[in-house]
Amino acid sequence: MSFAAPQALRALVARALENSGASSANAASVAAALVAAEIDGQKGHGLARVASYAAQARSGKVDGRAAPRVTQPKPAALIVDAAQGFAFPAIDLAIERLTALAPQTGIACAAIHHSHHFGVAGRHAERLAERGLLALIVGNSPKAIAPWGGKRAVFGTNPIAFAAPRAKAPPLVIDLSLSKVARGRIMAAAQKGEKIPQGWALDKDGNPTTDAKAALDGAMLPLGDAKGAALALMVEILAAALTASHLGFEASSFFTAEGLPPRVGQFMLAIDPGALSGGAFAERLETLLAAMLAEPGVRLPGEKRLAGRARAATGEIEVDDKTLADIENLAR
Amino acid sequence: MSFAAPQALRALVARALENSGASSANAASVAAALVAAEIDGQKGHGLARVASYAAQARSGKVDGRAAPRVTQPKPAALIVDAAQGFAFPAIDLAIERLTALAPQTGIACAAIHHSHHFGVAGRHAERLAERGLLALIVGNSPKAIAPWGGKRAVFGTNPIAFAAPRAKAPPLVIDLSLSKVARGRIMAAAQKGEKIPQGWALDKDGNPTTDAKAALDGAMLPLGDAKGAALALMVEILAAALTASHLGFEASSFFTAEGLPPRVGQFMLAIDPGALSGGAFAERLETLLAAMLAEPGVRLPGEKRLAGRARAATGEIEVDDKTLADIENLAR
Repeated sequence: MSFAAPQALRALVARALENSGASSANAASVAAALVAAEIDGQKGHGLARVASYAAQARSGKVDGRAAPRVTQPKPAALIVDAAQGFAFPAIDLAIERLTALAPQTGIACAAIHHSHHFGVAGRHAERLAERGLLALIVGNSPKAIAPWGGKRAVFGTNPIAFAAPRAKAPPLVIDLSLSKVARGRIMAAAQKGEKIPQGWALDKDGNPTTDAKAALDGAMLPLGDAKGAALALMVEILAAALTASHLGFEASSFFTAEGLPPRVGQFMLAIDPGALSGGAFAERLETLLAAMLAEPGVRLPGEKRLAGRARAATGEIEVDDKTLADIENLAR
Repeated sequence: MSFAAPQALRALVARALENSGASSANAASVAAALVAAEIDGQKGHGLARVASYAAQARSGKVDGRAAPRVTQPKPAALIVDAAQGFAFPAIDLAIERLTALAPQTGIACAAIHHSHHFGVAGRHAERLAERGLLALIVGNSPKAIAPWGGKRAVFGTNPIAFAAPRAKAPPLVIDLSLSKVARGRIMAAAQKGEKIPQGWALDKDGNPTTDAKAALDGAMLPLGDAKGAALALMVEILAAALTASHLGFEASSFFTAEGLPPRVGQFMLAIDPGALSGGAFAERLETLLAAMLAEPGVRLPGEKRLAGRARAATGEIEVDDKTLADIENLAR
């Protein structure tokens, strides 16, 4: 393990991406998102992505110089074209515009299309909540989950993120994918040659499997059985059908440099909580959270990220040596 | 079992409610919702509720003569005051107003407060989808689910309903509560003196239980463990905090005639899918559903209701004798 300061890491990642053909604006946006994920303890969406992102920019699977564009087909609705670039510049644009729009209209949404891997969904929701808005964000991803009763993956793991502003604390953040476990845990087990528990996945013939490699060729099981599969369908409709994007089963990999762009979608919703609640929102939320926390065993969702940020604020964060060396090579 | 025609049942239920003090407009709205639930095979939200609804109107826990009121604090946001009456007249008003508003603004929402049991959430979403809108609806309910790591119920079972319009078929409808199983199944087991499976519920001390009566005094377990509990929290925030309503742990029973009104909330969202998708929505949705249905074992969520409607369309529906006799007594 090495240690590096967040600001230096952002500059290093940005340079690696610029060397791979990204515009400096796009490189800065992506670097900010990946380093933030690393700090928040979401390493699967952090620095480990840099090499693959750079390769996709070099191959042209991602257009590193894309400039996202926004249109407003209706007063409370935005369409953001990520233009087959990285997702983060499009997300940044959507956050900026929703922050201006939602307080005027009460509720506003953004449909992002021609998009890519959008990293830590909860962080995007949190940024809207830091601006006083209640946020709900969903995205689709390459096929991983089978419909209930089916054997073949159709839906992505399809995260749902939600964040609520708090007056005297960082936002409450909920961020979950709809597979029973993260796909990264199955990938890690496959790399180590370990078995996975029953109930996580199916093999390519639709049979339950404890073989991690067979699971990667098959389908992940959803949380909560049929209900979870229905939620994955709901997210697929909001994130892909509503945004005119590729469905999970049509989307190419977020990892490999070959092939066509994934062209997935994201749907972002921002609500002015004061307007809807007649000013009661803050009191109601704090009353709810206090009732939860009255029991000693209960913690609020999303608290892990705050511990990571507190550590990072002391100066340097811990980074995997090999990952750092790869990024340094790309940045040379 | 007896058989009765839907139209005659609606008139009977309406008369029972009017005899208990409901206005004729409110009685008609409630009767339509309860008979529709019965037809759709959702008996827990159907005719079995009439006696309890009538008792609550007589005791004043529900104001049977309430007239819901709507205000529009922002161009895309509505607040509906259910005025401590039945939920359905307020829902009807929200559907009417959202149907007019969402195509103009692209997205619109309604926060309903001072509300009551809102029955089959999916049916309300479906009504918006029948009008061409994508709909997402959540509601909270009296406390039933504990926060993850906790022993005491704080959240309701908090349904999520979602419906999408289809060009050549009835809407796709998703409707699920966030408890692992419906509370009604535990109530039924308790009445019959049967045990419930491990994993459904906790007793009042927070220990896993297979005793149905002990489970009713304790807490239901959420679907999908910690993730399901987080979704129940999200719904509680949208349905209650955002609508300035009672939280699940503050709300009185939907069944008993004693006590103060439950004052729960509902949050309804309506989206113009054509505007957001640039006209691609219908093709994208049908492509997704066709991919799901390519496997013989897969069915779309919500299809059970269509079978119930087909049976009802033949003339008469099957009704429990005791339930019918009770309603006839109230209607006399």
